[in-house]
Amino acid sequence: MTPQSLTAYLHNEIPLAAAMKLSVATIDGGGISLRAPLDANINHHDTAFGGSIATLGILTGWSMLHIALLDEQIDARIVIQQSSVTYYRPITTDLEATCPRPDVPGWKLFLETLRRSKTARIPLRSEFYCIGKIAATHDGLYVATLAKD
Amino acid sequence: MTPQSLTAYLHNEIPLAAAMKLSVATIDGGGISLRAPLDANINHHDTAFGGSIATLGILTGWSMLHIALLDEQIDARIVIQQSSVTYYRPITTDLEATCPRPDVPGWKLFLETLRRSKTARIPLRSEFYCIGKIAATHDGLYVATLAKD
Repeated sequence: MTPQSLTAYLHNEIPLAAAMKLSVATIDGGGISLRAPLDANINHHDTAFGGSIATLGILTGWSMLHIALLDEQIDARIVIQQSSVTYYRPITTDLEATCPRPDVPGWKLFLETLRRSKTARIPLRSEFYCIGKIAATHDGLYVATLAKD
Repeated sequence: MTPQSLTAYLHNEIPLAAAMKLSVATIDGGGISLRAPLDANINHHDTAFGGSIATLGILTGWSMLHIALLDEQIDARIVIQQSSVTYYRPITTDLEATCPRPDVPGWKLFLETLRRSKTARIPLRSEFYCIGKIAATHDGLYVATLAKD
């Protein structure tokens, strides 16, 4: 899966992702980053809208888990169970959220649980920076369930 | 402020609110409710997208605080500091979020703090029901700051 194909998938399946003009910027061994331009995601204070930040955080964590499961050739349905954003400072630039790959021990435990129980939970954090400073964090608790054959 | 004028304000100031086709359904002594149609807020599982639920929750709490401050004739800037959503079950219908007016003791304390310190925080919960069952809750911690004259 390339950034372009994942961007197209998100735009095609989730109208709000298209409305936000979000794009997958990078996918690599370190993790994933998603972007969204300020103009489509602005609020009445001329800074990034809190709802756009929450949504980009949700999709960044979702995308990280989606990619990591594809790498394992696991076909699973992913939903979010809890989503929390802490807003530290206004974002005055285009949005970028970055989610690192899950740490190895946590990922191994998640895969073991998923294979044994057909469902497993994993917490993933995405971070937003603005002009070099942390601006917001998104903590998502995601649930993967093995697809039925 | 009427539901129509608040809807127009949100659409005008926040592009994502317009993209979600959200509307203010009711404003009364009990609280406020906002709606958004499923089609503009759907995901790849054909249920309501978690980002739309988070965003509608953020704006429902914001709108409740905005209305309550207008009722007090207080001109304040409102931002969100923390936003948390718990997703209990998929929403398969149009979205509706309801936020009750703040309880009287909490509201009095908030107003006292706002007048004394020029800034104050208040937690507000919005609830989402789907076919009679609770489907999601949004907890927002909002910060109001008195506008400078």
